[in-house]
Amino acid sequence: MKNILIAQSGGPTVAINSSLLGAFEAAKELGFEKVYGACFGLSGLLKGEIVNLNEVLSGSNRQLLMQTPSCFLGSCRKKLLPFDGTEKTQSTYLEIAQIFKTLNIEGFLYIGGNDSMDTVSKLSTYFKTINNKVKIIGVPKTIDNDLFATDHCPGFGSAAKFVATAFLELERDCTVYGNKPTVTIVEVMGRDAGWLTAASALARLNGATGPNLIYCSEQNFSVEEFLTSIEHELKFSSNKAVLVAVSEGLKIESKAAEAKTDQGWFDEFCHARNAGVAKLLEKAVCAKIGCKVRSIELSLLQRCGAHLASATDLNEAKKIGEQATNLVKEGLTGVMATINRKSDEPYSVDFGFVDVEQVANRVKKMPADMFNGPADVSKKAMAYLKPLIQGDPDIELENGLPKHLHLNKNYII
Amino acid sequence: MKNILIAQSGGPTVAINSSLLGAFEAAKELGFEKVYGACFGLSGLLKGEIVNLNEVLSGSNRQLLMQTPSCFLGSCRKKLLPFDGTEKTQSTYLEIAQIFKTLNIEGFLYIGGNDSMDTVSKLSTYFKTINNKVKIIGVPKTIDNDLFATDHCPGFGSAAKFVATAFLELERDCTVYGNKPTVTIVEVMGRDAGWLTAASALARLNGATGPNLIYCSEQNFSVEEFLTSIEHELKFSSNKAVLVAVSEGLKIESKAAEAKTDQGWFDEFCHARNAGVAKLLEKAVCAKIGCKVRSIELSLLQRCGAHLASATDLNEAKKIGEQATNLVKEGLTGVMATINRKSDEPYSVDFGFVDVEQVANRVKKMPADMFNGPADVSKKAMAYLKPLIQGDPDIELENGLPKHLHLNKNYII
Repeated sequence: MKNILIAQSGGPTVAINSSLLGAFEAAKELGFEKVYGACFGLSGLLKGEIVNLNEVLSGSNRQLLMQTPSCFLGSCRKKLLPFDGTEKTQSTYLEIAQIFKTLNIEGFLYIGGNDSMDTVSKLSTYFKTINNKVKIIGVPKTIDNDLFATDHCPGFGSAAKFVATAFLELERDCTVYGNKPTVTIVEVMGRDAGWLTAASALARLNGATGPNLIYCSEQNFSVEEFLTSIEHELKFSSNKAVLVAVSEGLKIESKAAEAKTDQGWFDEFCHARNAGVAKLLEKAVCAKIGCKVRSIELSLLQRCGAHLASATDLNEAKKIGEQATNLVKEGLTGVMATINRKSDEPYSVDFGFVDVEQVANRVKKMPADMFNGPADVSKKAMAYLKPLIQGDPDIELENGLPKHLHLNKNYII
Repeated sequence: MKNILIAQSGGPTVAINSSLLGAFEAAKELGFEKVYGACFGLSGLLKGEIVNLNEVLSGSNRQLLMQTPSCFLGSCRKKLLPFDGTEKTQSTYLEIAQIFKTLNIEGFLYIGGNDSMDTVSKLSTYFKTINNKVKIIGVPKTIDNDLFATDHCPGFGSAAKFVATAFLELERDCTVYGNKPTVTIVEVMGRDAGWLTAASALARLNGATGPNLIYCSEQNFSVEEFLTSIEHELKFSSNKAVLVAVSEGLKIESKAAEAKTDQGWFDEFCHARNAGVAKLLEKAVCAKIGCKVRSIELSLLQRCGAHLASATDLNEAKKIGEQATNLVKEGLTGVMATINRKSDEPYSVDFGFVDVEQVANRVKKMPADMFNGPADVSKKAMAYLKPLIQGDPDIELENGLPKHLHLNKNYII
């Protein structure tokens, strides 16, 4: 029996290590001899930073892996040039093929988002082209929930739970001074899609009246209409504390947008990083309305807050990891494991797969029927989101803080 | 038997409602007939927004009160003019005296920080002056931990646990790309004292190597030395991901400070609000060093994150509320209930009281021996902080989110 190699890529989530564990355990179960992990995704793989997970993941620390946020093996944002037959584009592929051969790899699992699925697509195409039977499988992961062909993405449910809990708690804080007019604008991650911003509405399940306004990146946005809505809420909301959720990726069509460039930078995948939307809107409210206004960025906390993980999310992440190993065993390549929802209530899913071409480099936006007007989400969105945040994993603490598993670099082979 | 009146004031914490519960339960225990709560602190009291807590706090919802963040009764930042015998300054005091008389109040408990202790001081002085026997007692509460005469302040331990957990999780996120030079600057609350910023060091108890640098407001700070330290860490730290904790109230002695004014505003107590320190330092790193840099403000999340409360904190907050009611029964006035630490390990405290004059309008800064050089805390600080974040309260969830208790305004008498 040959071996399996697993790597993690893209932005951290709190569920990506559960997928690693699931893939690892299924490989043991199915009789693969060794399970290797590549550190820092493709980048570490090319440097030979590889660990033997059979040694790293002893029984006692598997539970700790599930409660460890971010990528246990490390991550990267490396983009592969497409293989076009020329020597220039071939060298990286040759290196990877050589490593796979040396390690006797039957399947390579890449856990990541839509950029990582681009890597899965290119690698599987290359290996098919050279008639090499190694299997390349994608495992979805992103707090943005913007991958096509899967009902939702592992990592999203826990981030959604963090966002909903934060809004629930923030509303308590913002309403504490009674009828004092205040505006609190909270920026939620999501460059291209508003799924995570929409999850702020889940706070209403437990008695929050807010967020009063929810702006997702899918919707048209104008600063002028935003200010009119804020004024309306300040006048007519049950208390004068207006709580607003805004997507990081909101397209601000206004002169204010000019100021945005000093915040932005471009990563290796040429996505503009649109931080600072909430701060810009804070300044607009301050200038136009003049009441007390505060902007809050949930920032990295929303993607690494493992102490608030959703048990549903972690369990599904583990199962989709198992599914990916199964797909290797079944002889598939160039596919991504998927979650199919069978029912909202009672919530029920099963696991499938899809040609990774349908996923790579594409962004699944929220559909129109998940919105209710320009600044709210619909009942359909609530029914979709609610099951994903359920369940509280038992988290082992030490010194009053969560215990995490750390990768000992001495395990690099 | 006469009645007790309780109100909450100042900035929210996650423990202030536990003190309310403790004061309420002790009053029932000691045979006070009615326990009233004033909504929105002094402001609501003067408007007659008063509830009968015997009706509001039925047995089944007392546990929910303990897990509800922010001020259940609402808060205010109202400052009393000192009573100087003139008619102008007398009117508010007369109103309060009239309300106390109507409600047959024997003791008034005010749960708050150093501004609220100013109110306790002024009210108790007034009532002594007019020879009125009503007892005015302060109950400490602040995430800033900056009240004199008490070992620590209820609310601080839970905020410290939030901060330590956030740093633990953020380090996992920041180190995910291996040896890529990045700087992450996290701003922690604390206008005048660095206690909460110091708590970031607790992340090291569970394997974090960071924060690499910790800057508390007590220490001298220069942007130039800060940049030199960042460069040193980028060069010599075990990974190139530098994680920095900075106090909100850091005094930036640099031209950069000029930019700070556009963030600042003054509240009714004339404290400058120094938001934006991390953002300013981000810009400095970007300009001078040019690596990837990100600033994060923990903002309101750190003071309302009840899902991460410290059981030690909540239990002590409840006991200090009980203690305050006991002080009324013992006939004291113009005092604040205190926590006295008897031992760090095993951790042990008892409860006392102090003349509120020793607390009002003063700020307890971290002593010099809690620092280790210009950008770290000492072992003494760690020994002081560690017991305060221990214990995980059992939190009742519904819909995957914490349940909170909401005050029904129909209870206003």
